[in-house]
Amino acid sequence: MAIIECVPNISEGVRTDVVQGIAAQLRAVQGLRVLDVQSDATHNRSVLTLAGDAASLRAAVPLLVELTTAAVDLRVHRGEHPRLGAVDVVPFIPISGATMADCVALARDVGQEVATRHGVPVYLYEEAASSPARRNLEDIRRGEFEGLAEKMSRPEWAPDFGVAQPHPTAGATVIGARMPLIAYNINLATDRLDVAKKIATAIRMSSGGLRFVKAMGLALEGRPVVQVSMNLTNYEKTPIFRVFDLVQREAARYGVTVLESEIVGLIPQAALLQAAEYYLQLEGFSANQVLENKLRE
Amino acid sequence: MAIIECVPNISEGVRTDVVQGIAAQLRAVQGLRVLDVQSDATHNRSVLTLAGDAASLRAAVPLLVELTTAAVDLRVHRGEHPRLGAVDVVPFIPISGATMADCVALARDVGQEVATRHGVPVYLYEEAASSPARRNLEDIRRGEFEGLAEKMSRPEWAPDFGVAQPHPTAGATVIGARMPLIAYNINLATDRLDVAKKIATAIRMSSGGLRFVKAMGLALEGRPVVQVSMNLTNYEKTPIFRVFDLVQREAARYGVTVLESEIVGLIPQAALLQAAEYYLQLEGFSANQVLENKLRE
Repeated sequence: MAIIECVPNISEGVRTDVVQGIAAQLRAVQGLRVLDVQSDATHNRSVLTLAGDAASLRAAVPLLVELTTAAVDLRVHRGEHPRLGAVDVVPFIPISGATMADCVALARDVGQEVATRHGVPVYLYEEAASSPARRNLEDIRRGEFEGLAEKMSRPEWAPDFGVAQPHPTAGATVIGARMPLIAYNINLATDRLDVAKKIATAIRMSSGGLRFVKAMGLALEGRPVVQVSMNLTNYEKTPIFRVFDLVQREAARYGVTVLESEIVGLIPQAALLQAAEYYLQLEGFSANQVLENKLRE
Repeated sequence: MAIIECVPNISEGVRTDVVQGIAAQLRAVQGLRVLDVQSDATHNRSVLTLAGDAASLRAAVPLLVELTTAAVDLRVHRGEHPRLGAVDVVPFIPISGATMADCVALARDVGQEVATRHGVPVYLYEEAASSPARRNLEDIRRGEFEGLAEKMSRPEWAPDFGVAQPHPTAGATVIGARMPLIAYNINLATDRLDVAKKIATAIRMSSGGLRFVKAMGLALEGRPVVQVSMNLTNYEKTPIFRVFDLVQREAARYGVTVLESEIVGLIPQAALLQAAEYYLQLEGFSANQVLENKLRE
C-alpha cells in the first residue's frame, strides 16, 4: 500500500482544545492516521503529522481547511511564527509505494478543491511549484497575512488556484510536495561555539556546502557542549552518513571530536538503512531483505 | 496470529529450476508464506525462508523433505558447504505471537513425522537439543554425509528420531529452534585464501573470537576475491557492526581491505538500525522514530 505523509501547519497553538478537536475529526477519515499533533503557544501554531494513501489525504486536507477556517481568524491572530493562512502550509511527502510525481499530482488536486470549495486561494510550492520563483516557502510567505491583499494584487503573485484576493479570515494556503525532512543534530565534545558555527557554515548549502543541508551552530544550555543543528531536506541525494562524516572531518580540523548525534522526531526507514549499507559496505542489499518489510508486503 | 519463521537449507544450489519447483509447491500450502529463495552454486545449497503459524509449518516441512529427497542424491552432491542431509537443517524461529517453547514443540512434532513418514533420521539441535552435546549444528554435522553411517553407529550419535542409519541418498536432517540468524559475508580485496581463513579463525567463537559468530574462509569462484563467510547467531549480543569492524581491523594486519559485504536472505530490522545507531553515534534513538514502524503500530 502506498504511504504518503502530510504535515499541515495551522495557525492555532494556544487553544489546544480547538486543535485536538480538529485532530479528532481527522482521525475519523477512512484510511488516515494522525501520527502526531504538536502545539506551540509562542508560535501560536500547531504541526499535525498525517499519513495515508492519496485517497485518504484527498479527503482529509479539505476537511482540515474547512474546520480550521471556521475556528481561526487571522485578523486577530498573533504569534512568533510567520504565517499567510489559517491552514498555513500543507506539504505532501512520498514515504513508500508513492513517487514525488504522485505527491505533486495530489497537491494540485487538493489545491484546486480547497480554492473552489472553501474559497481559500492556494499557492503551490517546492516540487509542486508552478515557477522557480515559487519554490521557496519563505518567498511566498513574505509579507504574511497582513500584506497578502497587496501582494496578491500584483500579477506575479496571483495564486495558482482561486481568486487573487485573500479569504477574509483564513488568508491563503501554501500546498506542495517535498522530500521528507530529517531534523538531525550533531553534538561536539567542546564548548567552543565558534567551532560549531564554522562547521555549520562549511557544510550547509547556502554557504557552499552540501546541497540539501540547512545548518546552524549553537550552544547547548546547561552542558559544556556545542551543536551543529541541521535540517536534511533530501536524504536520498544528501545522505545522513555523508553529513555525519563531513562534520566529523571538519571537527578534526579544530581538534574536536563528535560526542553524539540525534534524530529529532520521525525518520524514514530508508534513511537509516542507507547508513547501515554505507558503513557496512553492503552490496546488493534491498529493503525487501528486512524481515518486517517482507512480512508487510 | 502467531508468526514463526523457518529457514530450511537444502543441498541443491546449482539446478535452480529444481529449487524453484520445490518452492512453488510450498507456496500452495495453506497459510504459508515463502518469503525468499536464495541459491548459491559454489555452496551447491539453497536457503528458503518460510513464515507462517505452527500448523502451516507442520504441513510444509515434511512436504519439503519429500520433494527434496526425490530430487537430491547426496552420493553425487559436491559443494563448498558442509552438509549431512538433502534437507540439511531446519530451524524454527519465533517472530511474533509464538514463544521459543512453541518452536521447540514444533521441532519435535516435525522431527517425529519426518523420521516416521519419510525415513530420514532426525537430530534435534540448538534450543530443541536433547543434550548439550547436540546443541551445536557443527558438532552434529561433523563428518558430513560421507561419514554419517559410521557416526550413527556410535550410541552417542543415535538420532533423536528414526533408525540409526542414514537415508541412502538423503542422509539425515537436523531440526531445531533458535533465535534469528544472520547470514553475513565479507569479501576481501585479495585472492589470498590464507588471509580469509586466518581472519575467520580470529573472529569466530570456536577459536577464541566473538561469542555468536561462526565463520570460515573461502575463495569465490570466478573472481579474484576471498570471503569470510559467517553466521551471526545472536545479533543482539554480537552486533553486525562489531563483526564488520573486527574483520576490517584483522584484514589491515595483512595489508588487505574490505571490498564489500553482503547479507544473504532476510535480516531483522533491528540488526540494521543497530548499525546505523553505532556508526552515526546516535543517542536516545528508538525504533519508534522510524516512520514505518509508527504506521504499523
